[in-house]
Amino acid sequence: MDESVLIVGSLAYDTVTSPAGSVENELGGSATYGGLAAAFHSRISNGGSVGIVGVVGDDFLLEDRELLKNTGLDLSGLEVVQGETFRWTGSYHGSMGEAETHETHLNVFEHFEPKVPENWKSPTITFCANLHPFIQKNVLDQSPPSRLSMLDSMNLWIQIAKDELLSVMKKVDLVIINDGEVRMLADDDNLIRATHFVREKIGSTYLVVKKGEHGVLALHPDGVISIPAFPTSKIVDPTGCGDTFAGTLASYLAKGAGPIQKHELRQALEAATVTASFTLESFGTESLLDLTEEKFNQRLDEFYTIIHN
Amino acid sequence: MDESVLIVGSLAYDTVTSPAGSVENELGGSATYGGLAAAFHSRISNGGSVGIVGVVGDDFLLEDRELLKNTGLDLSGLEVVQGETFRWTGSYHGSMGEAETHETHLNVFEHFEPKVPENWKSPTITFCANLHPFIQKNVLDQSPPSRLSMLDSMNLWIQIAKDELLSVMKKVDLVIINDGEVRMLADDDNLIRATHFVREKIGSTYLVVKKGEHGVLALHPDGVISIPAFPTSKIVDPTGCGDTFAGTLASYLAKGAGPIQKHELRQALEAATVTASFTLESFGTESLLDLTEEKFNQRLDEFYTIIHN
Repeated sequence: MDESVLIVGSLAYDTVTSPAGSVENELGGSATYGGLAAAFHSRISNGGSVGIVGVVGDDFLLEDRELLKNTGLDLSGLEVVQGETFRWTGSYHGSMGEAETHETHLNVFEHFEPKVPENWKSPTITFCANLHPFIQKNVLDQSPPSRLSMLDSMNLWIQIAKDELLSVMKKVDLVIINDGEVRMLADDDNLIRATHFVREKIGSTYLVVKKGEHGVLALHPDGVISIPAFPTSKIVDPTGCGDTFAGTLASYLAKGAGPIQKHELRQALEAATVTASFTLESFGTESLLDLTEEKFNQRLDEFYTIIHN
Repeated sequence: MDESVLIVGSLAYDTVTSPAGSVENELGGSATYGGLAAAFHSRISNGGSVGIVGVVGDDFLLEDRELLKNTGLDLSGLEVVQGETFRWTGSYHGSMGEAETHETHLNVFEHFEPKVPENWKSPTITFCANLHPFIQKNVLDQSPPSRLSMLDSMNLWIQIAKDELLSVMKKVDLVIINDGEVRMLADDDNLIRATHFVREKIGSTYLVVKKGEHGVLALHPDGVISIPAFPTSKIVDPTGCGDTFAGTLASYLAKGAGPIQKHELRQALEAATVTASFTLESFGTESLLDLTEEKFNQRLDEFYTIIHN
């Protein structure tokens, strides 16, 4: 198999309110956004395959399944079971840095036992998108990647499954986490100190700290990387931005071989920043689905002149 | 005269509490930090002169005057009058992003009428550091600069002298302001939108938005510049960081001629970021006074690899 990215994560219907408006039961979830971003970058770079492991209920719309499939995603690891698809309801306020969660219904994810398809047992990258750490660990065990294992999470799991989360974090090469979660894990308001503390604690080779509108900080064995966000005034819905970011990272890092070089990680983080800035500009997956190679490259060039030239 | 930077601003005695400890009646003020930073960069680059316009009371210590003078600052514009030197009391909490002001006693600044010395009437740069907008305007009128006028401010003046502040902002080429103040002036939580709004409103050629631990954003006619902060875990006292930043900017921009180029502004902003990171590491002016060319260049190189390489 060529380079391949396996993503385990949620597929969901989201109900979101922001100062820009609101939507009900929009297709969302960490595997959806991560998968769409990875599939986009795979398409425009003639890259390899992207597969999803997850579960939906029998209420999952056929058109949503078709939509995912048409982007090139391999859905052979997507189970359909009796019951309701995962649902999340949240809202954003003020500078929209953080979501306020109103309801989380795991539904079919509550008793999900992931089964990785035979041909996905040794991908280039295994990316555990945000999901219960037990499920993440299970997929990692089934699909040890040839190049890099990645893990994203959220504050919920720090609150209700911290030990399980730390245990799976210790198993992966690259952990993605946001600034609030780093501070929470380290119990320290100083982000830089907290970041170093968390890396010590979990021993991951690469640690990526997403700071939303403030950019991203990454620890690489060869040094620190710091990148500002793409400065956009069009903020409609931050839902899925972190997953878009991580999916792009996975797709970029699937391309090389051997240990991830610092410049390689920086390039992937810059592309991830730019891709996530599109997700921000619409509710749901709309602007991510509308993304073209031309639009992406144009904004990537613009971003380069903003941060380097 | 060679390149020269004239700074009007406050000289103060600060009482500061932070999670790292506290100090009483430390030498501070916007002209002090701005002047020390500009004088440092002037020294290590064999640059021109840096002069201060301000006022202190008869309680201002001779040793503080000597300290300023010994860094190379021209104090011919520093008046001494009967009364007490400006005093500020504040504290920092949590991630220490913002100071909480407990007391501000303008004292001798209340009736200050700046008199710019004859040989400072046409400097390369006139930098109005944080101070009442009336005094800033007065000094600008007396000392039209040959290359660039710069202005810094703070939330206090937006609250109590907004019209006067906007009027003097409209007169300068480069306005420095922090993110909270931009949001306050634009009455908009979206920083990017607020920044563009403020630039439209005041019409300044260059607008620099300081975001503290989140770096700096600048609008230049040729495009946006975004630079993250230097990632330091040693945060002792943010007092004076913004003034250090602005003083460095003034010193760097005094070197060239003609309109400020985008790459020139970026280079100055990177140096300003690094210089301010030293001020952060001690109470008062201690680490700024201890700064050497070697320490500065080493950290500037480190910063370069963090944001570019």
